[in-house]
Amino acid sequence: MEIRTAAVVGLGLVGGSVARDLAARGVRVAAYDRNPSSLRDALREGIVETALDPSLAGLAGVELLVVAVPVSDAPTVLAAARPHLHDTRLVTDVGSTKETVVAAAEALGVGDRFVGSHPLAGNHRSGWEASRRELFAGARTYLCPTRVTSAAALALAAELWRALGAIPEVMDAAAHDAHLALTSHLPQATATALAGVLAGADVDRSQLGTGGRDMTRLAGGSPEMWTAIALDNAPALAAALQRIEGEMRNLRSALLRGDADEVRRFYTAGREWFDRSEA
Amino acid sequence: MEIRTAAVVGLGLVGGSVARDLAARGVRVAAYDRNPSSLRDALREGIVETALDPSLAGLAGVELLVVAVPVSDAPTVLAAARPHLHDTRLVTDVGSTKETVVAAAEALGVGDRFVGSHPLAGNHRSGWEASRRELFAGARTYLCPTRVTSAAALALAAELWRALGAIPEVMDAAAHDAHLALTSHLPQATATALAGVLAGADVDRSQLGTGGRDMTRLAGGSPEMWTAIALDNAPALAAALQRIEGEMRNLRSALLRGDADEVRRFYTAGREWFDRSEA
Repeated sequence: MEIRTAAVVGLGLVGGSVARDLAARGVRVAAYDRNPSSLRDALREGIVETALDPSLAGLAGVELLVVAVPVSDAPTVLAAARPHLHDTRLVTDVGSTKETVVAAAEALGVGDRFVGSHPLAGNHRSGWEASRRELFAGARTYLCPTRVTSAAALALAAELWRALGAIPEVMDAAAHDAHLALTSHLPQATATALAGVLAGADVDRSQLGTGGRDMTRLAGGSPEMWTAIALDNAPALAAALQRIEGEMRNLRSALLRGDADEVRRFYTAGREWFDRSEA
Repeated sequence: MEIRTAAVVGLGLVGGSVARDLAARGVRVAAYDRNPSSLRDALREGIVETALDPSLAGLAGVELLVVAVPVSDAPTVLAAARPHLHDTRLVTDVGSTKETVVAAAEALGVGDRFVGSHPLAGNHRSGWEASRRELFAGARTYLCPTRVTSAAALALAAELWRALGAIPEVMDAAAHDAHLALTSHLPQATATALAGVLAGADVDRSQLGTGGRDMTRLAGGSPEMWTAIALDNAPALAAALQRIEGEMRNLRSALLRGDADEVRRFYTAGREWFDRSEA
């Protein structure tokens, strides 16, 4: 990868891991995190060479900017960065929704150099402590251009993620958000809803078997990050929730009327879907 | 363990694994499975010494009977076994609901020698092919006595499961079913409901990230086994489904009215519950 200097704003699981991988490839990394101890640790470990202040004035001269903050904060960070981007060839983010941030980049006049990124590499851990080398190895990474992204910026974004071991895939931002509502935001909300039921019944996670633990692992995710994602993708997530509520209501009603055929149909349909990808 | 002869009816994941562990400890195992190829494989592998026929007449002389069939079939198997149990010191099952089978054992007059068992060792695989040695190592195993279970039978059940590496825990059958509705039957139904939504949206499991895959793994479970469990525990499972539908409806309504505080409360409550057991 031909990039020599980069800035990362937000040193959480994803931003921190990007910083580690870039530093390991010899890129000089500047960074800001509103949590002073994360920034201090990143400097002490030699991953980050220069600490930025909240004005982001230190961005001048940096070729690549990676915004890795909750999706609700990304437009603000882009606005703060805006005056200092004259030397920047690529601006990207890593959030789980893309329409809002793509629109913000366009509105700020940096749409030509902006590509929204979404590496499918999150897990239920968060923060600098959770970041690590090679988090993105083999991870599908959606790239969402603006209406005016230059071919050079899009190619550089693909090159960046490939260099980090990821598998980039270009997707329209609106299509991305609709897809992720089903494949990620709904599973997350479902895990949290299940956690809510168990909390209300005073059942501890340690009392669950392997299956129940799998089904509640995502509930350990960052509430701040997920609140921002859910609000940003509210209509699509609400529609997905309504569908799963419908599935559950159908099962519940079949159980209460003792409709064995309908109950069997429910479990059989799930298994057939499962087998479809395992085959 | 002092048992020398045992019979296993149903050579699926759990029954097959019990047979393997017993055979490995020198117990002579007789078995029946309605699938001829499972029984043939178990005989050929030397795990099962004697094949039983559906009359279960060959049970005479056997010290231990383990019933490992879908919970809807367990009462029928007990009734078939009933005339041949004169030498049997312990009759047990392995199903995920316990009230019905415990009541059936009492009604058949074998309550003194019956202890319902439920090893938390299931997973989404099923059948003889999925069975293995040491499936029960470290697995909590609920023991549900009848109203007339003898102390000797209960002690023998505990000894059996400890010999298989499990951790037995005595629990009332009704309390067991209420608890499992929340800790196992609800997570299973939730995974299947999520699978139903994704199937309806033509999203394949291979398109999911790690979290989404965790959330749908249980959908691969045996439809026959889960249909029987859900119907047998219908009121408790229906009540649990109603609670999770309520959690989802609350989130959905907060999203649609843009109530950030309520959305944050939802994700924060799930995380607090998660942290409670991780600490």
